[in-house]
Amino acid sequence: MDKIRVELGKDSYDIHLGYGLWRELSSFIMGRGYSRKTLVVTDEHVGSLYGEETCQTLKRVGLKPKLATIPAGESSKSLQVADNIYTELIEQGMDRKSPIFALGGGVVGDLAGFVAATYLRGVPLIQMPTTLLAQVDSAVGGKVAVNHPLGKNLIGAFYQPEAVFMDMELLSSLPKREIPTGLGEIVKYGVIYDRDFFAYLEEHSEGARSLEPATAMHMVKRSCEIKAAVVSKDEKESGLRRILNFGHTVAHAIEQVTGYTRYNHGEAVSIGMVAAAFISRDLGLVGDAEVTRLQKLMTALDLPQKVTGVATEDLFAVIFRDKKTVNGKVNWVLMNDIGEVTVTSKVPSEVAQKAIAACIA
Amino acid sequence: MDKIRVELGKDSYDIHLGYGLWRELSSFIMGRGYSRKTLVVTDEHVGSLYGEETCQTLKRVGLKPKLATIPAGESSKSLQVADNIYTELIEQGMDRKSPIFALGGGVVGDLAGFVAATYLRGVPLIQMPTTLLAQVDSAVGGKVAVNHPLGKNLIGAFYQPEAVFMDMELLSSLPKREIPTGLGEIVKYGVIYDRDFFAYLEEHSEGARSLEPATAMHMVKRSCEIKAAVVSKDEKESGLRRILNFGHTVAHAIEQVTGYTRYNHGEAVSIGMVAAAFISRDLGLVGDAEVTRLQKLMTALDLPQKVTGVATEDLFAVIFRDKKTVNGKVNWVLMNDIGEVTVTSKVPSEVAQKAIAACIA
Repeated sequence: MDKIRVELGKDSYDIHLGYGLWRELSSFIMGRGYSRKTLVVTDEHVGSLYGEETCQTLKRVGLKPKLATIPAGESSKSLQVADNIYTELIEQGMDRKSPIFALGGGVVGDLAGFVAATYLRGVPLIQMPTTLLAQVDSAVGGKVAVNHPLGKNLIGAFYQPEAVFMDMELLSSLPKREIPTGLGEIVKYGVIYDRDFFAYLEEHSEGARSLEPATAMHMVKRSCEIKAAVVSKDEKESGLRRILNFGHTVAHAIEQVTGYTRYNHGEAVSIGMVAAAFISRDLGLVGDAEVTRLQKLMTALDLPQKVTGVATEDLFAVIFRDKKTVNGKVNWVLMNDIGEVTVTSKVPSEVAQKAIAACIA
Repeated sequence: MDKIRVELGKDSYDIHLGYGLWRELSSFIMGRGYSRKTLVVTDEHVGSLYGEETCQTLKRVGLKPKLATIPAGESSKSLQVADNIYTELIEQGMDRKSPIFALGGGVVGDLAGFVAATYLRGVPLIQMPTTLLAQVDSAVGGKVAVNHPLGKNLIGAFYQPEAVFMDMELLSSLPKREIPTGLGEIVKYGVIYDRDFFAYLEEHSEGARSLEPATAMHMVKRSCEIKAAVVSKDEKESGLRRILNFGHTVAHAIEQVTGYTRYNHGEAVSIGMVAAAFISRDLGLVGDAEVTRLQKLMTALDLPQKVTGVATEDLFAVIFRDKKTVNGKVNWVLMNDIGEVTVTSKVPSEVAQKAIAACIA
């Protein structure tokens, strides 16, 4: 069992982390003064595995949970599916103190979070991420969103959960492909913030890949600590928080150009980190040694480093309409070293284009 | 010219109030560091009167405004219309520093505000209310929302504008029915917070009804000051802010039962205030004298006091599904005196039912 505090003034909350958290969840709920009616949002896969168990736990502490099961996959992150959940909430008579539980991966967390942020102008949200990626990425930090047909995450809010429960036991049913997907974001935390953590991953790549319990706990915990530290200093991404987007400029473009089907988020981020590392090297910010070290760790963790079947021009066209673009400028997150990054909009387009081209197989 | 500060920490902002504010608007925009591309949301009526003038003003300070014109009326406050505006924003390449101007009444302000709150997780919002009701009610305080087919304002957020510009000159084109509509909310501020302001309205009922400039300025200013004072103390309606809902419990029910067509918001609030006054009297909180005084002022201001063609049971059924209901309890705002109210959930249903029945013609 472990607890990480996310400091955000009156919106502060705890991340509960461990193997088997049903008891923690129960004691958290008691004494919160929640209304009894509550909605557990999940998807078909996770719902069939853990939906019943979650509802039973909530019932034992006096809640009346209803399960709202959405189709698995990115296409559920839409205004239309959000609207269906609003209808469910209204029909069930859920009020301003009715909590919403987000039981699932990033899609469930982002969608349920957006609904919690906007239903009755905001109801309590409890994140229960069930994938490695969601644990270290989307479930912490308060970014919630749905997609628009013209782009991902374009409609959303900053909305903090009242607690996050990361039950590592639930990772045992994780599909194989989800492990490197989460490891991509975990490596990112080493690169942007913590040289020692990067070295830990190098030493424990075997345990990381197999989600060996001690290694899994440590790497999820350290990732969450780093994210919490960054988000505490800059909740709404006006400065420091941008460093979390290392690898994401190219990643978003890859996801969009390939229609959000061929690559999942973590895979796209992995490839994007390589592109960002190449740009950093070509601008003289890091040497070959750091880039090689990053690539070596990525290889050890089975992370993809190249994208197939896309054109540099297509990726480039999308990058200049990314939502982090302000006044047409792209903010690149670049490496200064392993464990330290910098944000700059001053990247000559030839340099960016060359680096991106080098990541296309 | 006048300026009212809404104190909300780092989200504080000014309400600019006066006759002819184009110059104030220009100097506000300069130095804000906004992106050039911007959207002015308006409706057909207001757009045809003031859309061009607004865009010209914005162009003179270097912005590139685009006008988004929605159909007039409550039905535009929908997720569907919001989605159309998202599409417009994305297609125009608007970014996180692109401001959205809400030029219109409550529908425009609530809808554009919801879009500003959720596009890219929040972009700058400038409210330019053009009706008396929007000036004293929806444009101040940061409540934004769209409707759901099952109820009004069920999807929304607390999202503060960066400034509010209330150009009293724009009221000259206000449809006749809009004046009592706004006066209803103005009387409310006297009842809930300021006995002297209530007396002022009694003395100036003629000037209030004709929107005589000095009276209009004073009553809008004082209403905004009171709303700002209340919202500063309780932005997210966990306590004090509830007093602003005086008359609203029954008002929402009237609007819903009559399908949001026969009564507009201000009219419904007027009738709801009478119902709340009756409950207050029947519970012994105020005497007949206060209730008569309220009714007399309402008559002098042409405010409706009875609803026609609805059944008490229908109003009652809706009240218990109002979004301010928590755990099935209704929070009633009741009069202690002219200038002072109290919030209580302890109203026997016979008392509520009798008071509501007395407001049905």
